[in-house]
Amino acid sequence: MTFPTKIYIRELAPREGFQALPTIFSAQQKVDFIDLLSKATPDEIEVTSFVRADLVPQMADAAEVAIKIKKNPTICYSSLYLNQRGFLESEKTGVLQNRGWIHFAISETFLQKNSNTSNSALIESIPSWVECFRDCSKNWHGIVISTVFGCNYENRHYSADDLIKLIRKIMNKARQAGIDPPSEISLADTMGWGSPTLVRDGILALRAEFNFKIISLHLHDTRGSGMVNAYVGLEEGIDRFDASCGGLGGCPFAKNAAGNIPTEDLVYLCQTLKIKTSIDLDALCRAAHFAEKLIGAPLNGKYSRYKNH
Amino acid sequence: MTFPTKIYIRELAPREGFQALPTIFSAQQKVDFIDLLSKATPDEIEVTSFVRADLVPQMADAAEVAIKIKKNPTICYSSLYLNQRGFLESEKTGVLQNRGWIHFAISETFLQKNSNTSNSALIESIPSWVECFRDCSKNWHGIVISTVFGCNYENRHYSADDLIKLIRKIMNKARQAGIDPPSEISLADTMGWGSPTLVRDGILALRAEFNFKIISLHLHDTRGSGMVNAYVGLEEGIDRFDASCGGLGGCPFAKNAAGNIPTEDLVYLCQTLKIKTSIDLDALCRAAHFAEKLIGAPLNGKYSRYKNH
Repeated sequence: MTFPTKIYIRELAPREGFQALPTIFSAQQKVDFIDLLSKATPDEIEVTSFVRADLVPQMADAAEVAIKIKKNPTICYSSLYLNQRGFLESEKTGVLQNRGWIHFAISETFLQKNSNTSNSALIESIPSWVECFRDCSKNWHGIVISTVFGCNYENRHYSADDLIKLIRKIMNKARQAGIDPPSEISLADTMGWGSPTLVRDGILALRAEFNFKIISLHLHDTRGSGMVNAYVGLEEGIDRFDASCGGLGGCPFAKNAAGNIPTEDLVYLCQTLKIKTSIDLDALCRAAHFAEKLIGAPLNGKYSRYKNH
Repeated sequence: MTFPTKIYIRELAPREGFQALPTIFSAQQKVDFIDLLSKATPDEIEVTSFVRADLVPQMADAAEVAIKIKKNPTICYSSLYLNQRGFLESEKTGVLQNRGWIHFAISETFLQKNSNTSNSALIESIPSWVECFRDCSKNWHGIVISTVFGCNYENRHYSADDLIKLIRKIMNKARQAGIDPPSEISLADTMGWGSPTLVRDGILALRAEFNFKIISLHLHDTRGSGMVNAYVGLEEGIDRFDASCGGLGGCPFAKNAAGNIPTEDLVYLCQTLKIKTSIDLDALCRAAHFAEKLIGAPLNGKYSRYKNH
């Protein structure tokens, strides 16, 4: 066991949470929530997503939210985008610190539903993506592998072999095109199919064949193993995690998917393991309590609920 | 890591759940729930508690519930009791398979509030407890150590040292009185102060000094680490767990304590680790859905919630 000494946390609640809720909240309500999250000083906040407003009306105010939030210079404010149009729209706001991501998925069915594309089309478009990033003075930072451990649509688990096969194709294309490989891979368990075995096998298989500087985990807690999967990641030395204040979240195109692991529960777990984070846990709980009032229903975060008594 | 090949699960939802809820449900509603739980065939079901009806009115129908439930001969039906009067009342029903337990706690404050006694008084009364068990043709099976990792009243963690000191006193008294030591110790994290470190340290310290046949874990999920703590127990080879269908629970005398780890989430985790249980997971989810309807609010169990979609 080699726990990291410090982990980097990407706070996803504003994007994951508001996209998954049936209610459409106002831009100001979102801004108020994000400003509270900023007070908890996570390393990064994914504040919104630049996607099609006709399909995800909850995110139609993406630019407005990105512009209005109070920026803390120690925090990286980023956004989700699934195609180059979305990336360029986000960049146009001029106020976000987006990194260059391309979103793949092991499940072609999910990729079609979520991004209206296929892995082969995405792989073919790597040079065009990289050019698009360059036009905005960015490099190709990372790849997200959604549905990395399984998919509700295809109703099956994916193995480390499935993961490795996809990464090989991506890296081969980059090599052929003379493009530097990305430094980060995000293993995104979009629908919560992960287990200790799948998480560990995936990490070990990646390390055995590739040289990613950062392997990060994005874990949804559909089946109650989310925090265990995070712990297994920590055991394997993973030092970058996505998490969502209050456990808010779920994907509008991922049926039956629950929210992400709650940031407050992850931070508390790290504290017990003497693993540092940049987060002020009390401030984070205040943000969770704000979200709970806004939404009008108990959230999944345990630590924030305990602190609310 | 030495995962067990099979774990024994004590299903606590009828006792933990109904005691913690403000509503008083009818004996028949409880019986219907327990009969559904029986169909999931856990190794043991703690069906009720024999405690003071003036203090815990939710449990006033203990004998009626114990008598009315349909017994599956493969399941051990037991009850909670905190004093000899309660044990004898439970035994009087003639329908339960109680084991001989004495309930200690590291937190004297909790022990006073929950059982109106102290560790020293309990230790003095060991010979009288053993006689009481013998009168009912039972032996002294086990000790429960409540608040084993910390207490909200005393607002602090307890270390493995605190645990070992208490066990030494208990075992010394048994030795002096010529009484066989108990075979099981239940580490009961009544208010969810456990962490991977505390769980592992507790187990290792116990094994280094004592020879309990069974170390079992009773974990509440107050701070979001409940399932991680269970996983750490599995890593250490622990093969007996308390859990509660739907994550129902909480102690009426343990302020701010959340429910137990959800049985369905524990069983699912075990399945991913190829650890066997006696439980039919679909039948268990049906019991959780029944409880959810009865209570009229979403439960904490993630796997059952996923299966409800």
